[in-house]
Amino acid sequence: MNLTTLSLKKNAERRLKAGHLWIYSNEVDTSKTPLSGFEAGQQAVVETASGKAVGIAYINPNTLICGRLVSRNTKHALTQSLLVHRIKIALSLRERLYDQPCYRLCYGDSDNLPGLVIDRFHDYLVVQIGTAGMEAMREDIIAALVKVLKPAGILFRNTGGVRSLENLPEYIEAVYGEVPDELPLIENGTNFLAPVRDGQKTGWFYDHRPARAFLNGMVKGQRVLDVFSYVGGWGVQAANHGASEVFCVDSSALALDYVHKNAELNGVADKVATLEGDAFSALKELHTAQEKFDVVVMDPPAFIKRKKDIKNGEQAYRRVNEMAMRLLKNDGILVSGSCSMHLQRDNLLDILRASARHIDREMQLFAECHQGADHPIHPSIPETAYIKAMFGRILRV
Amino acid sequence: MNLTTLSLKKNAERRLKAGHLWIYSNEVDTSKTPLSGFEAGQQAVVETASGKAVGIAYINPNTLICGRLVSRNTKHALTQSLLVHRIKIALSLRERLYDQPCYRLCYGDSDNLPGLVIDRFHDYLVVQIGTAGMEAMREDIIAALVKVLKPAGILFRNTGGVRSLENLPEYIEAVYGEVPDELPLIENGTNFLAPVRDGQKTGWFYDHRPARAFLNGMVKGQRVLDVFSYVGGWGVQAANHGASEVFCVDSSALALDYVHKNAELNGVADKVATLEGDAFSALKELHTAQEKFDVVVMDPPAFIKRKKDIKNGEQAYRRVNEMAMRLLKNDGILVSGSCSMHLQRDNLLDILRASARHIDREMQLFAECHQGADHPIHPSIPETAYIKAMFGRILRV
Repeated sequence: MNLTTLSLKKNAERRLKAGHLWIYSNEVDTSKTPLSGFEAGQQAVVETASGKAVGIAYINPNTLICGRLVSRNTKHALTQSLLVHRIKIALSLRERLYDQPCYRLCYGDSDNLPGLVIDRFHDYLVVQIGTAGMEAMREDIIAALVKVLKPAGILFRNTGGVRSLENLPEYIEAVYGEVPDELPLIENGTNFLAPVRDGQKTGWFYDHRPARAFLNGMVKGQRVLDVFSYVGGWGVQAANHGASEVFCVDSSALALDYVHKNAELNGVADKVATLEGDAFSALKELHTAQEKFDVVVMDPPAFIKRKKDIKNGEQAYRRVNEMAMRLLKNDGILVSGSCSMHLQRDNLLDILRASARHIDREMQLFAECHQGADHPIHPSIPETAYIKAMFGRILRV
Repeated sequence: MNLTTLSLKKNAERRLKAGHLWIYSNEVDTSKTPLSGFEAGQQAVVETASGKAVGIAYINPNTLICGRLVSRNTKHALTQSLLVHRIKIALSLRERLYDQPCYRLCYGDSDNLPGLVIDRFHDYLVVQIGTAGMEAMREDIIAALVKVLKPAGILFRNTGGVRSLENLPEYIEAVYGEVPDELPLIENGTNFLAPVRDGQKTGWFYDHRPARAFLNGMVKGQRVLDVFSYVGGWGVQAANHGASEVFCVDSSALALDYVHKNAELNGVADKVATLEGDAFSALKELHTAQEKFDVVVMDPPAFIKRKKDIKNGEQAYRRVNEMAMRLLKNDGILVSGSCSMHLQRDNLLDILRASARHIDREMQLFAECHQGADHPIHPSIPETAYIKAMFGRILRV
């Protein structure tokens, strides 16, 4: 491949040399290589100000992050064969860790495939492409996946705000084979059906698997409340691991239909109830009704999507967690999750500390889980770390 | 109990109100209540500048941390009965989490018993008292433990630098029943003998239990190197979970004797070898001999004991981790532990990132573990969090 060059300003290669993969538009020496000279998705050799090659990136001239490194070797552009290689490397970590083929197979930057997310449901793959550079590789991605995994079907779930940033259309399409609307998966020994076409993101959140596994070990005979339950990832697993009663709260009727389906699937339908509605109102209702639980799982959607949401977002975390604590029996357990990349671990802990003190409770943080091993963190890209799950024991003072 | 008063300076109660338990000597209004008026270990009612009671603390007039709150209720001083109450609360968390009575039963501040650490080995208890205030309760602690747990024996392992800060003598003494020199325990399904009299700290480190459990799940058929192995907590468990060969490196002959004993105990003696010596030299030797491993566990003692050690300590972490990476086969796994409270998680990750880049490796951080649930974190006291265990997949670029 004969690639054009993208020149960086002086010292702008430092972050890349430290391991990062992103190039910001203000780091490009546009006098030498104007961004307007690139098409969205085009690959280019990235050079330092002194003309030393750093590697190959794909470019999007219209975005703040205008380049993402796909290779540190200028001989290896992102081709179908490099895709096959990278997917195999990603696969080998997952195969080492999981005995069932149900996991995030590829987690973007962390698997050296920026812009590409793939969740595996046994023989089916659900793919999310987030950048023009990856969109340009669309047919090669399909061919590479067929080569490595021989899947029964591949669904492109190309939706979400990140696409519009890159000027990409949103679409959902079975690009290979036939893909049912719902797909089975196993997580921590519990069976689920995920609404891969109509649900959130790829249909399922594998990211909280270790936290759910930890919770499963301590729910026997417990009354559990699962707030923002989606299709029952926490709640149905808890029921399947011996919880005496589980209440799942969500605002989506579709999600709660799947809670019931999933409970049924594991023979625990008699233990699982659902409550449709806004979480804040539902929590108030439960409080007014003097309901008490042994365990409350509070796993909200990202209240902080952008940095400017931090203040309001932190207040929302504070509010729901304090309400959750009020619904606990003495010596109850709060599982407080967050998928906000912009909410730091220490801040979440401080929110929990302050919430507890505010209602005269003491908290012991006895466990802390992170995103599962199928969502590895790239040590140079802090943005790849986002999941937090804190296990607090809440005691009356 | 009729207690004397300790007056705080204006606003000095804020940290206590936020949940912290410590009082620094410069926060005391010594014009009203001179510290010289207190005996080491004495309890006092702590009051704000305006005379409002905050709770009861025990005092040591000779230490920087001159007081630790034992109660927020001025009616409840630290007595045998409060000790019984607190130990029962601590016990109930552990009983909820562990099916074997082998754990840290009490973790000081986090269990609202500042200065008191108790490790449980089935029917035996090994106790570490770190403050004059707890030392003053010595007989009540023994009585309370006998009351709650009816142990076969209690060993006071009152050693370590923290004692001299409090002007307390160091001693090891069986204060109740007879206590053998070594005690059995089970961790993650593996049997161990811990040298509770002659080993480090209480004889065993329960703190890395979750990280060891995670490692156990991925060592089948793997060649494992366990550096700073002590009595084989990581290495022998790995062998017991299917590792093909395990090498334990430690500078203590006693520790390595126990590695062999513990390997024997689990029927894996043929798979476990030891190498006595300084870790730095041993790693160099292994490198020179071109030995390669699938997994290296690098779990050094605290290289950073005080804040002023940070720079040198970080260099030491860098050095050992880089050496560990060099000993890995391609796509090997580094388990990098740290028990330095002063080494922040982000700094350890950055050390690993830089080490990998320096020798042209890429790292995926695929898991991160913390201290076990029997070492809960007090959300107001960051010092109660100290263990980190990072799981990195190390790939050639």
